[in-house]
Amino acid sequence: MAAPPAAPTDLFPARSARGMLARMAVVTVVGAGMMGTALCHPLLDAGHDVRLVGTHLDGEIVASLKAQGHHPKLALDVPRAIRPFFLEELEAAMDGVELIGVGVSSAGVRWAGEVLAPYVRPDRPVVMITKGLEWSGTALTTLPDVLERTLGPELVGRICPAAVAGPCIAGELARRVETCVVLTGRDASKLERLRSALMTPYYHPFVSSDVLGVETCAALKNAYAMGIAFALGMHEKSGGVPGSIAQHNYEAAVFAQSVREMRALVRAVGGDPESASGLPGVGDLDVTTNGGRTGRFGKLLGLGLTVPRAVEQMQGATLECLDILRVMQSALPALKAEGNLASDAVPLLEHLIEVALGDRPVAMPFARFFR
Amino acid sequence: MAAPPAAPTDLFPARSARGMLARMAVVTVVGAGMMGTALCHPLLDAGHDVRLVGTHLDGEIVASLKAQGHHPKLALDVPRAIRPFFLEELEAAMDGVELIGVGVSSAGVRWAGEVLAPYVRPDRPVVMITKGLEWSGTALTTLPDVLERTLGPELVGRICPAAVAGPCIAGELARRVETCVVLTGRDASKLERLRSALMTPYYHPFVSSDVLGVETCAALKNAYAMGIAFALGMHEKSGGVPGSIAQHNYEAAVFAQSVREMRALVRAVGGDPESASGLPGVGDLDVTTNGGRTGRFGKLLGLGLTVPRAVEQMQGATLECLDILRVMQSALPALKAEGNLASDAVPLLEHLIEVALGDRPVAMPFARFFR
Repeated sequence: MAAPPAAPTDLFPARSARGMLARMAVVTVVGAGMMGTALCHPLLDAGHDVRLVGTHLDGEIVASLKAQGHHPKLALDVPRAIRPFFLEELEAAMDGVELIGVGVSSAGVRWAGEVLAPYVRPDRPVVMITKGLEWSGTALTTLPDVLERTLGPELVGRICPAAVAGPCIAGELARRVETCVVLTGRDASKLERLRSALMTPYYHPFVSSDVLGVETCAALKNAYAMGIAFALGMHEKSGGVPGSIAQHNYEAAVFAQSVREMRALVRAVGGDPESASGLPGVGDLDVTTNGGRTGRFGKLLGLGLTVPRAVEQMQGATLECLDILRVMQSALPALKAEGNLASDAVPLLEHLIEVALGDRPVAMPFARFFR
Repeated sequence: MAAPPAAPTDLFPARSARGMLARMAVVTVVGAGMMGTALCHPLLDAGHDVRLVGTHLDGEIVASLKAQGHHPKLALDVPRAIRPFFLEELEAAMDGVELIGVGVSSAGVRWAGEVLAPYVRPDRPVVMITKGLEWSGTALTTLPDVLERTLGPELVGRICPAAVAGPCIAGELARRVETCVVLTGRDASKLERLRSALMTPYYHPFVSSDVLGVETCAALKNAYAMGIAFALGMHEKSGGVPGSIAQHNYEAAVFAQSVREMRALVRAVGGDPESASGLPGVGDLDVTTNGGRTGRFGKLLGLGLTVPRAVEQMQGATLECLDILRVMQSALPALKAEGNLASDAVPLLEHLIEVALGDRPVAMPFARFFR
């Protein structure tokens, strides 16, 4: 059976019966950090022409990729077919581009919007791996919406950037560990084409139309993973060693309450609570606790370090958990006042805010859980 | 403020304003394995007169407790105030009993029913920590119901044994790690009294009326935890070492699909899917993966061992995961035929059955997940 003919505007033709893309697409990913670079691996393996552009913060990474083909942060040799570009070479990297990937940090989303504006068109899909939420003073805003607004008022509602969420440690994806992610966005037809363009035998994207729920989980999981990891530090502080007897009971109770609160918060912002029980919530929470820097930070707080000392020990690592806790500290009173969130719905999140932003000692309010 | 006066039939008077039980109760726990013995610790700390009776399999444990105050399986000295009894001393252990705890293995539930029948009365609460499900040929049956039927037909509907579920590693509870559990049963008033009788500053029981949902999760989590642990073995087999770069992406995707399938199965048996997203589902799944023998068994299968070899390496440890997989192998066709479960709802569970009962190699069907 031959592949169905592609419509003229269809940049990602449907896969043939053999599961191969009918042709390569030109894909340019901006942001050569760990996750941007990791995403290039399934793109390459799916048969695309992949270009990776560093931001102004990624100069050393791009230089290393060009010289030795080595990514220092991933501690990995990257296939030469993933072609590295300095930011100054952006125009060349965008030549003939058909799909744009955004792999900057959450702080860089507006910058990315400005840099990418000349290259974005309604018929050229944009996919983001940047995760986070912003508080506008009246509402929580997802980063795909922030990006779209930055691209220019005339494009609002016409780009609908897609976002990738779900449990994915970059260093594992770049080593081709089997990975399931969620693709979400406001344009369902684009999502299906993106899914076809991204999937490989080890990279499994699933489509969700629940942008608010998925992106809320993607941001919140960092806050909750910090709290789940307290138990690790507390166990070590009490003289315990890693093993099957530790403080897993404590950790598991916090994990379960995290999912419960994420369901309530997703519902409060108008999303689907099933996202919190699925890959974007439970799945990402699990991976962030086990493999992420957020978990290491939470462990330090569980050991009893003050927040400034713990931040110092993280040696400049991005701590998304503090960002989202600040956002939620602002958002919670409004969500409650609007009647979208019960006053006793998130005792865990409130304690995490006290600990991380108020430097209060860890004292988990278990008696207020599971109401 | 004084404690409210207790009604004559109220064996567990409400706590006073100070949170103390108005008086001690006599509590006898049958089953001196790890979990039965662990439960005695919060009971003792809550102020009760606690007696622990070994089954015919626990002779060595009771002998060690009597001689040295040491529990060999928990690798822990147990407070002398938890008084140990041989099965032959059951009558003495039951003298004046007000609350009966059942801490036998799932295979021992009918035996426990027969042994306890002379001591059980409708006004004497029974609480079980035994977990499991049975397939009657037409329906899944929870162990509290099995126990009640075994006690005698005249008592059915009059005892309503309560059950404890949720994330609790026995060795941690016995070391007084903070622990949240769920108390469930068909008699809501008994549950509240039990909660008051069991709670201590480190043991937090929460009440749920969803017996079917809670007990289904308590049983299923063993099957799913086995599958989540495959990733550990696969990583080791591929030459990896434990750390933040492993196969956490794989593990987290299986975890999320597990919760999704548990929700579908709980709904199929008439329970509340929220139990699967809460302490009995997510929480117990987390603890079982991190701390339990089920996880070690799953890891061995992920390493590529055949089931008989993996069972051999577990040196006789109880493998509840195999029991529940056998039950579900029988139950799934009926649940589907009755229209309570979609045909594609549990691809992960079906693969776990193939691997553990059919000795097929692990090949996770990710493409069939998250539908």
